[in-house]
Amino acid sequence: MKRIRLRVAYDGTNYCGWQIQPNGITIEEVLNKAITKLTKVETAVIGASRTDSGVHALGNVAVFDTESTIPPERFSYALNQRLPEDIVVVASDEVPLDWHPRYQDVSKTYEYHVIHTRIPDPTRRLTNYFVSYPLDIETMRKAASYLEGTHDFVSFCNIRTNVEDTVRTVYSLEVLTKGDQITFRIRGNGFLYNMVRIIVGTLLRVGRGFYTPEQVKEILEAKNRKSAGVTAPPHGLMLMEIEYKDSETSASQSGENKGRK
Amino acid sequence: MKRIRLRVAYDGTNYCGWQIQPNGITIEEVLNKAITKLTKVETAVIGASRTDSGVHALGNVAVFDTESTIPPERFSYALNQRLPEDIVVVASDEVPLDWHPRYQDVSKTYEYHVIHTRIPDPTRRLTNYFVSYPLDIETMRKAASYLEGTHDFVSFCNIRTNVEDTVRTVYSLEVLTKGDQITFRIRGNGFLYNMVRIIVGTLLRVGRGFYTPEQVKEILEAKNRKSAGVTAPPHGLMLMEIEYKDSETSASQSGENKGRK
Repeated sequence: MKRIRLRVAYDGTNYCGWQIQPNGITIEEVLNKAITKLTKVETAVIGASRTDSGVHALGNVAVFDTESTIPPERFSYALNQRLPEDIVVVASDEVPLDWHPRYQDVSKTYEYHVIHTRIPDPTRRLTNYFVSYPLDIETMRKAASYLEGTHDFVSFCNIRTNVEDTVRTVYSLEVLTKGDQITFRIRGNGFLYNMVRIIVGTLLRVGRGFYTPEQVKEILEAKNRKSAGVTAPPHGLMLMEIEYKDSETSASQSGENKGRK
Repeated sequence: MKRIRLRVAYDGTNYCGWQIQPNGITIEEVLNKAITKLTKVETAVIGASRTDSGVHALGNVAVFDTESTIPPERFSYALNQRLPEDIVVVASDEVPLDWHPRYQDVSKTYEYHVIHTRIPDPTRRLTNYFVSYPLDIETMRKAASYLEGTHDFVSFCNIRTNVEDTVRTVYSLEVLTKGDQITFRIRGNGFLYNMVRIIVGTLLRVGRGFYTPEQVKEILEAKNRKSAGVTAPPHGLMLMEIEYKDSETSASQSGENKGRK
């Protein structure tokens, strides 16, 4: 028996998120079926991030156990033959049998993509949130700086599951611009449910002038979800990368797709 | 009666091209229905470029005649309320009643988007052609230079309709790179059927080492479609802009969406 780790990229548009659920097709389900078909043994993956319906990923991580003799690095190629074109296994390798993708020290990077223009561009609509109102980038950057560091982020968490510990560390939260594109890039040791999308929704309210940057500090300190702005829509969000601290089994070993603009 | 000109952007993924046809839904048909619904009079547009199934556009142009009292500039907004999200009217204005989008001196700009990487990125698959084999950019650039200028491009035209004059002028043909993205940007006074896609298919064969740059010159001189490379797939192609020489009625007046990477 060995444990295989996959780095998975997907366009989330046509899926009800990662996690298997009764009402629609999910990434996890499609992966399970492809592995089961390939190895001829009923198999289920364990995923690192259970992304929501419509959210995309370039570097989600999942593991599964198998007795298959396929070399670990070949699973990527073999599975891609059996997956639809909107799900791609970017890399595969072997990890120790006790390696679990969610019980590790990690750094996760998400990007939230906004296109700031008067008229939406239909060719970029599936991976960008269009915003046509005026935005002040500098005040958004100032507000973002208050969210960096270790804080109780309960104000930026939608109540769905009862997470007991709502303290997280945001290593960096950048507001990058290029042409009509605004990218919110956030790196942290973990994120609460909808946390990135609530942070972006709140920063957009700051950029629009509805909140001052200092009010974001107050929202954080209020420790109350009702204080923060609306949740930004899912299709702008992309899980870019999960870096595992145990460098020996880092999931970011591959240089593929690093050229993404 | 007045003639309204539209600048139209669309994601061609879900359409059987521009031109109305019996076997599937087209951009032209959806536009006609939206205008008819808005003006309450059965209306048909005349398009500048009849793009193929799967081809995208940021700046196609169409005109229609109407007795409507809606101000010309407002048609853009009013139609976007009635169009699906993969078709957007970027701008609208009034042109003289005898202004025809195909009988004008124009400069058309197309881009063909290739992603050059070992593993495809599912989030960019609808607007990019993935190429994993090695490519020599410099030899593609050299081959491209032979195609600039005024030539008989019959070797780069698929025989579908009988166009009598197959001489066209290519003002520029650039091969641009940025990260894993290769953009073939071609500007000309007009293009034959499938011309851009055959040029790109041929240049990719050059980049792969199947043809020398000088052979592209020979293909051009052979004046025989069978000489050139395969037609590159439609989803990498995007009609960027149509500039009309009569500056008074230029369709590129708007600065919208110019920030596109």
